[in-house]
Amino acid sequence: MGILVVGSVALDTVRTPAGYAEEVLGGTAVYASVAASYFADVSVVAVVGDDFPEGHVAFLQRKGIDTSGLWRQPGRTFRWKGEYTGDLNVARTLDTQLNVFQDFNPRLSSEHSRSRYLFLGNIDPDLQRGVLEQMQRPEIVACDTMNYWIDNKLEALKRTLSLVDIVLINDAETRHLAAEQNLFAAARRILSWGPRVIVVKRGEYGAVMIGPKEVFVVPAYPLEEVVDPTGAGDSFAGGFMGYLAAKGESDDAALRQALVFGSVMGSFNVAEFGPRRLGSLTFPEILERFHEFKQMTDFSDV
Amino acid sequence: MGILVVGSVALDTVRTPAGYAEEVLGGTAVYASVAASYFADVSVVAVVGDDFPEGHVAFLQRKGIDTSGLWRQPGRTFRWKGEYTGDLNVARTLDTQLNVFQDFNPRLSSEHSRSRYLFLGNIDPDLQRGVLEQMQRPEIVACDTMNYWIDNKLEALKRTLSLVDIVLINDAETRHLAAEQNLFAAARRILSWGPRVIVVKRGEYGAVMIGPKEVFVVPAYPLEEVVDPTGAGDSFAGGFMGYLAAKGESDDAALRQALVFGSVMGSFNVAEFGPRRLGSLTFPEILERFHEFKQMTDFSDV
Repeated sequence: MGILVVGSVALDTVRTPAGYAEEVLGGTAVYASVAASYFADVSVVAVVGDDFPEGHVAFLQRKGIDTSGLWRQPGRTFRWKGEYTGDLNVARTLDTQLNVFQDFNPRLSSEHSRSRYLFLGNIDPDLQRGVLEQMQRPEIVACDTMNYWIDNKLEALKRTLSLVDIVLINDAETRHLAAEQNLFAAARRILSWGPRVIVVKRGEYGAVMIGPKEVFVVPAYPLEEVVDPTGAGDSFAGGFMGYLAAKGESDDAALRQALVFGSVMGSFNVAEFGPRRLGSLTFPEILERFHEFKQMTDFSDV
Repeated sequence: MGILVVGSVALDTVRTPAGYAEEVLGGTAVYASVAASYFADVSVVAVVGDDFPEGHVAFLQRKGIDTSGLWRQPGRTFRWKGEYTGDLNVARTLDTQLNVFQDFNPRLSSEHSRSRYLFLGNIDPDLQRGVLEQMQRPEIVACDTMNYWIDNKLEALKRTLSLVDIVLINDAETRHLAAEQNLFAAARRILSWGPRVIVVKRGEYGAVMIGPKEVFVVPAYPLEEVVDPTGAGDSFAGGFMGYLAAKGESDDAALRQALVFGSVMGSFNVAEFGPRRLGSLTFPEILERFHEFKQMTDFSDV
């Protein structure tokens, strides 16, 4: 009855100004579920190939994540190769091999279909809707998307967006999806298609949440070194959904705190390649950084 | 004994996605002093040509600004022509005619030299230091700079920075000045040269203040339309210095509030071409927007 995370599991090869990492555990479903695991029960639904190291499954299980929905298919695991140069907000994809992920068509177990919280990673919007239709009565559904689907399946994507509560996307995707340069005007247009809230992830500039009336802005944590930005947005989504599930509420106050916890998880994740730092956190460390966010944004009224 | 603002007064011709304006009143000293005038007594030190419209002087005087330091020289007023396209954070300069501003060498009256607060716009760092040396005992000195001086007079600029309390510069200038891509590492390097505090203006992403220990981040006001970004950073500086002067304190709490008032003034300024909106504000409007910033950034502790 916790959080269901549906998305990719990958083996990532990444070069950044801080170094190079080969075939590290990655993918939306990994980052989001590990981040969420500090707050609530998490089940992951994804597909991997027969080359996927057992050690990675064991890592997820050690984080308490239910991997019964992690299907192992004949073939190779999804691989992504990318690099970040000066601007750490933008990854340059060098190679994508979808492999078994190409035929991913998630079927939920009856237990998974009763999850109260659902996070849909940036898979095909028709598949996202397919998952949604299998759910019994989720309390909060959030989804991500990416430019590929905006360009190639806009109408399907809009249908999916009309069914979700929260859209979690990045800055550039927000402008692109709405075909509108101004971020706030773009967000309003997307809200008019159905979702209650849009959360815009802005990398080193933090995140903004825009609802029907309220705007809430949280900065990024002031890091003096970013080792690998990969997975920051998914870690954010995991922290965000995790906190909502733990809190059991989704009013404006809870959503604001969730946005801060999302930022906290994203900020930890970029400190090492892969989900290594994200996977080694303690809850007091998470809470301490939450309080640092408070300190960093607080000012006295006049 | 209020704020002394030293910088350019210009006639700007600007094209933005929202329209076009020809030879409107502009320049650092104008935006900064009009913004500051809502909070404290302001004197401006600048130079204009004999073509400078009397109506513009009258406008400044109606805002209560002391224009006794506004020198009228034979020749034409400084002119700037620029345009903004998709990314409203970056102006493309189409033409610069320094005219009388080329020989600007500010000499302060004895009254001006006793000002408690000094804002040095982005003029030649040697001139900035020349002004500083004429001051009696200012309480707070803040300065701006620009890429041209970073590229051409870095050592002079560093000498000036070693003498000021607060540096107010933008994001790109911060990275460029420190020759460091990470904003926080860049800021720490600049602080090591002498200033107590650095305020980084980030356009649509707000502003960050970095001191020896504290980091404070304030977002930009969520505007759905920006008519003309020209002068936003200078309006920010004016609001920031104005509030410090009004408050008469510069501890961390006052600096934080000043950063919010700076953001408020910048956000109003971009709503129309030139300083038109900035010049027509009421103090209750300013306070109301300050409270909106509070609402937009506040979250409950856990």
